Amino acid sequence: MSLKHAVLALVVERRGYGYDLAQRLEERLGPAWRLNPSAVYPALDQLERAGLVTGTARGRGTRRTTRVVYAATRAGDQALDAWLRTTSSRPEPVRSELQLRLAFARAEHRDALVAQLAAQERACAALLACYDRRPSEDREGGAARLIDDAVLGQLRAQLRWLREARAALVAGALDDRAR
Amino acid sequence: MSLKHAVLALVVERRGYGYDLAQRLEERLGPAWRLNPSAVYPALDQLERAGLVTGTARGRGTRRTTRVVYAATRAGDQALDAWLRTTSSRPEPVRSELQLRLAFARAEHRDALVAQLAAQERACAALLACYDRRPSEDREGGAARLIDDAVLGQLRAQLRWLREARAALVAGALDDRAR
Repeated sequence: MSLKHAVLALVVERRGYGYDLAQRLEERLGPAWRLNPSAVYPALDQLERAGLVTGTARGRGTRRTTRVVYAATRAGDQALDAWLRTTSSRPEPVRSELQLRLAFARAEHRDALVAQLAAQERACAALLACYDRRPSEDREGGAARLIDDAVLGQLRAQLRWLREARAALVAGALDDRAR
Repeated sequence: MSLKHAVLALVVERRGYGYDLAQRLEERLGPAWRLNPSAVYPALDQLERAGLVTGTARGRGTRRTTRVVYAATRAGDQALDAWLRTTSSRPEPVRSELQLRLAFARAEHRDALVAQLAAQERACAALLACYDRRPSEDREGGAARLIDDAVLGQLRAQLRWLREARAALVAGALDDRAR
């Protein structure tokens, strides 16, 4: 999942430093995205090399106090618009580390898997609780609500499955797979 | 998502050529994973460098007819077992290109977004139909059913959201966002 266009979109909305852009992106995408804020910097470098943003150093000139502020170029405006008009029908893949483990675990790994499912249940419930406190109506109108609804639907389906899968493992779903 | 351990697990189950391993992995993970079969080769190289599998050339020795068959080493057996006993509570991120587009689209991009949601609805419904024809009960006992259930839950939640989001966009969810 490339963040390049999302970072470009932020810069088009309002110029900013890398750190500020990372914070705005995290706020916009929500906690379930699990953004790595430092991913913003290579995206900015790539956008700058492509001529879509320009970086200008600000500050006193020493390495510690200089920060680079990024602004969109005219080509950047156009590239963002083109991206937002592109349609792609490729469905997102459905992938998780748990699917891999379940595909290959044997009866002797049951306890470890049950523990992992329980830990992910807790993590998933905690993430859902973050969304209860997230004031998405205030952010960006109807579209912000839609983004959060997409995430909530996925998280609820995941939590339901984690509970069912744990019950199935406890009831012996791996018992026919011996070493 | 690293496939390294899944490829190791396949080789531990039964030695095989890269191509056969890719086919077995695709069968095991199901169509929603959207496996790129060629991802198996770098995983095998990595496993071989780590001493977890060994590759042996078979065939007549010319480049076109030589194939490499991979078998697990004793260290490979142990590494697989250790992986299956590791628990990680990190929840999977919830990310999609559509979230990014929705976060930044303006009113003038509505038609393109509506078209994209409709295209993804069709792709998602087609993927769900593949699972109706997938005989998961015959594959690996109860755990295969669990993997497919995880995917089905995600796909159904996605399809429900795609329909709701499209209706919301048609009803004007982006209209307050002008350029």
